[in-house]
Amino acid sequence: MAKESTKATLLEAGRQIFLERGYNNAGIEAVLQAASIPKGSFYYYFDSKEDFGLQVLDRFAECFRTDLDQFLNDSTLSPLNRLRRYVENRLERLRSQECRKGCLIGNLSQEMADQSEAFRARLTQIFKSASERIAQCLAEAQQAGEIPASLNVQELAEFWLNSWQGAILRAKTIRSIAPLETFQKIMFQLVLEK
Amino acid sequence: MAKESTKATLLEAGRQIFLERGYNNAGIEAVLQAASIPKGSFYYYFDSKEDFGLQVLDRFAECFRTDLDQFLNDSTLSPLNRLRRYVENRLERLRSQECRKGCLIGNLSQEMADQSEAFRARLTQIFKSASERIAQCLAEAQQAGEIPASLNVQELAEFWLNSWQGAILRAKTIRSIAPLETFQKIMFQLVLEK
Repeated sequence: MAKESTKATLLEAGRQIFLERGYNNAGIEAVLQAASIPKGSFYYYFDSKEDFGLQVLDRFAECFRTDLDQFLNDSTLSPLNRLRRYVENRLERLRSQECRKGCLIGNLSQEMADQSEAFRARLTQIFKSASERIAQCLAEAQQAGEIPASLNVQELAEFWLNSWQGAILRAKTIRSIAPLETFQKIMFQLVLEK
Repeated sequence: MAKESTKATLLEAGRQIFLERGYNNAGIEAVLQAASIPKGSFYYYFDSKEDFGLQVLDRFAECFRTDLDQFLNDSTLSPLNRLRRYVENRLERLRSQECRKGCLIGNLSQEMADQSEAFRARLTQIFKSASERIAQCLAEAQQAGEIPASLNVQELAEFWLNSWQGAILRAKTIRSIAPLETFQKIMFQLVLEK
């Protein structure tokens, strides 16, 4: 297997295992086994488990950002409908995985924020960037007259992102998409209503 | 030390350590050491680490519920002001711990929902009970004419609880109470406004 491909396989196995078991509870051996990569090669690709974990997170964040941009840049829809479609899409994804696993960004925030400054700094940046992107779309919705001009889009974007993480956490706990549907309903009907 | 007191000391040490390190990452030895209890006595009090973890959670949930009731049963305030005071109080508590640790209910939901049916069942029940208590207070606010009669208080209570968990998660990540203040502002000014 080519070097880059081996590395990508390890990162993908890490994503799966971190989502299933968390970071601390996932051994490097389990990652190597899941990726069918011989032991001993891990440290050829990564300096440490933390280096590996951060690269898994970066890769996840990149996919997350690509997805977000894909929906929020869709000029065939109004800004508010882009956000609606994005939430519907996420909801379907979580339904398809029976609400298990959750979101790696939320999971690692919960688990690692107090334990690793490197994780905390990276997660802070990921949230900030997503929040800015959502605020931008909300500002466009405001310009299009879809939501009240009086709303503070930066604050709303923050609330949106955090509440969504809370909804995922609860969906995972009760293994039902009901919390995501409640988020959807209240955000669009009460918070953003004209 | 009397038996009940030893057990309580172990449960309190467990609460602290689970809040700091998570459940999987906390060894029983560390709990015994923090509690200054000799090794070997753990299995006299608990059947297993899971049994211990569930009892730590039950004890935390009991305190959480007592606090919630204390605020929401305060008949010297209007129902909506009871909720306001409760949020202010939580916010101050999280500020005093520099937004570290978070909430054990949210932390264990994130970490254990996919890994232990026993934890998942207990957490589901804790959330349900808190949600019902908040819904009851919102219904009282509705009867008092403080919030619109059109609001679905059960859904709102769910959204409230989940969004608050998301705000705690984010506060822990950025180590700032800003997400809690945003929750407070948007919940009271946009979602519940008359």
